[in-house]
Amino acid sequence: MPRPGAAALDRAKSLLDGALGPSKVVTGEGALAAFAGDESENDPVLPDIAVVAESADDIRAVLRVASETGVPVTPRAAGSGKSGGCIPVGGGIVLATAGMKAIKEIDRNEQIAVVEPGLVLGDLHAAVEAEGLFYPPDANSLSWCALGGNVAENAGGPRAFKYGTTRDYVLGLQVVTMGGEALSIGRRTKKGVTGYDLTALLVGSEGTLAVMTEAVLRLVPKPETVVTLMALFEDVYATSRAVAAMLGARVVPACVELLDRATLDAVRRAGVSVDERASAMLIIEVDGAEVTTELEMERVGGACDAAGALAVLVAQDVAQRDRLWAARRALSPTTRAMAKYKVSEDVVVPRAKIGALLETVDVIRETTGVSMLTYGHAGDGNLHVNFLWNDPAQVADVRVGLDMLFRAVVDCRGTLTGEHGVGLSKASYLPLEQSRAVIDLQKQLKGVFDPKGLLNPGKIFPRVGHGGC
Amino acid sequence: MPRPGAAALDRAKSLLDGALGPSKVVTGEGALAAFAGDESENDPVLPDIAVVAESADDIRAVLRVASETGVPVTPRAAGSGKSGGCIPVGGGIVLATAGMKAIKEIDRNEQIAVVEPGLVLGDLHAAVEAEGLFYPPDANSLSWCALGGNVAENAGGPRAFKYGTTRDYVLGLQVVTMGGEALSIGRRTKKGVTGYDLTALLVGSEGTLAVMTEAVLRLVPKPETVVTLMALFEDVYATSRAVAAMLGARVVPACVELLDRATLDAVRRAGVSVDERASAMLIIEVDGAEVTTELEMERVGGACDAAGALAVLVAQDVAQRDRLWAARRALSPTTRAMAKYKVSEDVVVPRAKIGALLETVDVIRETTGVSMLTYGHAGDGNLHVNFLWNDPAQVADVRVGLDMLFRAVVDCRGTLTGEHGVGLSKASYLPLEQSRAVIDLQKQLKGVFDPKGLLNPGKIFPRVGHGGC
Repeated sequence: MPRPGAAALDRAKSLLDGALGPSKVVTGEGALAAFAGDESENDPVLPDIAVVAESADDIRAVLRVASETGVPVTPRAAGSGKSGGCIPVGGGIVLATAGMKAIKEIDRNEQIAVVEPGLVLGDLHAAVEAEGLFYPPDANSLSWCALGGNVAENAGGPRAFKYGTTRDYVLGLQVVTMGGEALSIGRRTKKGVTGYDLTALLVGSEGTLAVMTEAVLRLVPKPETVVTLMALFEDVYATSRAVAAMLGARVVPACVELLDRATLDAVRRAGVSVDERASAMLIIEVDGAEVTTELEMERVGGACDAAGALAVLVAQDVAQRDRLWAARRALSPTTRAMAKYKVSEDVVVPRAKIGALLETVDVIRETTGVSMLTYGHAGDGNLHVNFLWNDPAQVADVRVGLDMLFRAVVDCRGTLTGEHGVGLSKASYLPLEQSRAVIDLQKQLKGVFDPKGLLNPGKIFPRVGHGGC
Repeated sequence: MPRPGAAALDRAKSLLDGALGPSKVVTGEGALAAFAGDESENDPVLPDIAVVAESADDIRAVLRVASETGVPVTPRAAGSGKSGGCIPVGGGIVLATAGMKAIKEIDRNEQIAVVEPGLVLGDLHAAVEAEGLFYPPDANSLSWCALGGNVAENAGGPRAFKYGTTRDYVLGLQVVTMGGEALSIGRRTKKGVTGYDLTALLVGSEGTLAVMTEAVLRLVPKPETVVTLMALFEDVYATSRAVAAMLGARVVPACVELLDRATLDAVRRAGVSVDERASAMLIIEVDGAEVTTELEMERVGGACDAAGALAVLVAQDVAQRDRLWAARRALSPTTRAMAKYKVSEDVVVPRAKIGALLETVDVIRETTGVSMLTYGHAGDGNLHVNFLWNDPAQVADVRVGLDMLFRAVVDCRGTLTGEHGVGLSKASYLPLEQSRAVIDLQKQLKGVFDPKGLLNPGKIFPRVGHGGC
C-alpha cells in the first residue's frame, strides 16, 4: 500500500505533539518496532508514528489529526491478533490503547461490567469471578489479549459452544469515529431495540469503522462447578458421532475441543503418552450446579462410549483440569515452535462435515508435502488447520494448500473464519465466500464511517485485481 | 407524509401486473383494508397497492418496480406489530409476505432451521419441538405473529431472560434490497466472523433496510422439564429483591414475569381470586433436566421467601401451567378490552430501577388522571406500561404521560423499547435517548441500502421539526 507523504506526516506529528504532549507520541524505528506486528503469519510493518493513548480524549485527538492530515490510523490493543488486523500496512499512525486497562464498573445486580480497551481478558475474568460473576468468552490467548481486540475481532474461544462469542456479551460501546467524534451506542440493559444495532455492527468490524474507548459487557452468574473429561477415539468420525449423541441427549457442553491425529502425534513427540490406537481426542467440559454437571457428565460419557470411544477419563481435581487446559492452550505456541513458519487457519464447517474436512486436509498434506495438524472447537465446527514448514520456498505450496482448504470449506457451506477475523490474512479470499454485491455493500457502509478510507486500511476487503477470486 | 403521484402509481401497478400477474396485485379500498394497520395505537393507513408475494422472485419484482417508479414500499408479515412498523404511512405498495410460510429445512445435527418470513412463530415452535429441538424467542403473540416481523423487530418474549432475543438466533439471511438485488448474508454455522455482521444489523432494522426472504435460525436442544412458579409480594421492591437473590443463587430462570398492583386489580375484577395483601406477582419458570429444575426451583422459592413473599405456589401439572400462561398471554388483549383506547409501552430500565419506575408510573397516573397498569419481563427490566382511556380528549394527557415516562426511563439509563421497536410510535422520542450524531449515522447507513428513502418510510427516525426533543 502507498504510505503517507512526508509533509502530511510532519504535520500530523506536530499536531499530535501539540494535542497530547510529546511523551505519548512515539517515533524512531527502535521504539516503533513494538507497534509493527501481531501473532499472525503476516510480516510486521513499521508505522511512522505510534500514539500511546491514555484516555478517550487522546483517542479523539488522534482521529481528529488523522482526518485533518490524511494520515492513516491503525488501532492496536494487545497485538495478539491472528489475522494481521493491527498491522499498519499503510504506515501512518498506530493508535495504541494497551495502556487503557481500567475496569470502570462491575455491577453485581445488573450483571454488567464497564471496561477500557486495554484491559487483559484474563484480568477481567479474575475480577468478575471474584464477585461471583462470569464473562464467558475465553480466547486461548486470555493471559495477554485485550478487550479492545476481542471486540474488534468478535473473539471466541472454547466456551463459545455453550455461551457464544464476544458479540453476545457487548451491550453498548463508547466509540470515536474518524474526525474525532465520540458516540455512545447501544445500551446498558440486557434488552433494547432502539434503532439499528450499531453495537452488533461494530463488534467484529476489525477496527475499520470506529475505535472503542469503553464497552459495557453483559455478565452471567459464575458456574458453581466445572467438570472436564477427555475421550480418545480411533478416528475423527467417531468424535462427530459423539458430539451428535451429546446434543441428542440434550447436553450442550461448555466446550468440545478436538485434537486430530497429527496433533496427537505432536503431543506424543513432546513426550506425553497417548494410546497408540487413538487418532482423535475430545476435551469436553460441562459447567453448572453440581447435580447438573454430574448428570451431564454421565450423558457425555455415555455419548462417547456409544460412539466407540477407546477411553474416557474425567479430570479428578482442579490440578488435573488445569494441566489439561494448559496443554490445550499451549498447542498454538508449541506447534509454532515445531517449524520455522506456521499459518494457523480458522475455518468453520457444519459439524457433520468435520470428518470430510479432515480428509481434505489429508489430501492437501499429500498434494503439497506441507506438514499439517488440526485442532479446535469441534462443537462449533471451528477448526484451526495449521500449516508448518521450514523451507521458505514451500510458501508457494502453502498457498496452494490454503486455496484448496478454503474452497473445500465454502463448498460444504462453511465460513472462512470463526474467530480470528479476515484482516490481512484472508482479504484476498473474501470473494470465495461473499458475492461482489455483499462486499460492495460492506465497503459502502465503511464509507459512511470513514469516507477517506483512513481507518485501518488494507483490512477485510480484497485489493482490486488481487488473487483469490 | 406525501403520497406518491397517480402517474407513478399507475405505472407501478401496470409493471407489477406484468411481472407477477394480476392475481397477486391487490387494489380497491375494501381489499386493501387488510394491509393497513397493526396491533399498535397508530391509525391504519390504506396503501394504494398490496402485493401478495409467494416467492423471493415476487419480492425482487416488487422492489425493482418500486425503485424504478419511485413508489414507496412497506413490508408486512402477520401485522401483529406494536409500533406501527408495517403501517404504510407513505402510501404506495404494501409487500405482504404472510403467504410465504414454508419451513424449508430442519437439520437436527447442525441444529438449524431455514424458514420463510410468513411462517407463524408458534408453528415453528411445534415443528422444531417435534424433533427434540427448541427455538426460544416467544413473543406473546406467538399464535399468529410471523418470523418476518420477529426478525424485523428483533422480537423478544418472556424467555429472553435466559435465552436472549431473535437476533441471538438468526445466523444468516436471504434478503432483497431496493432495486431487486438478492443478497445472501451471514452463515449457516454457529460461529463465523467473515466481514461485517450484516445479519445482526438487519435484524431489528424494522424493515427499513432490506426485505427478508429466508432466515437460517439457530436452535438448541429442547429442555426436558419446565417448572412454573407463582409468587405474591406486598410490594414491587420485594420482587426486585427476589430477582437479585435468584441471580445471587446463580439461577437464571427461563423467565421472570411481573404483574403490578393495577394489573392484579384488573385480574381480580375479572373474577380471579388473588390474596388482597398482594400488590405484585412474579411468574417464574425454570427449565432443563429434572435434577436441574428441582434444584433451581428450590433456590427460586428460597429467594422469594427471603424477599418476603406472601405466598409461593408451584404449578402442579401441565394444565395448571398452561392456564397460568394463558392468563399472562391474555393480559394484552384483556387490558385492551378494558378501555376504548390503549397504548402499551415497552420500556427497559436497569433491574434495580423497576421500583422507582413504578413510582413514576404512580405519579403519572395522578398527574394525568389516565388509567395505567404495568406488567412485563422483570428479569430484563423490560416493562409494558399501559395507558387506558375512553375519552378521546384524554389523548393530550396520555401524551404528557408518555413524555414523563420516557424521560424517567432515559434518566435512569434505560432504553425506550425492549422488543416492540421504534416504528411510528416512538420515532419522535428517539432524540431523547440518542444523540443527533448517532441518529445521523443511522440515517446515512439507511441511505446506503435505500438511497431514495422508499423502503418503509416514516419509521424509526424523527421527522424534522417534529417534537420529542
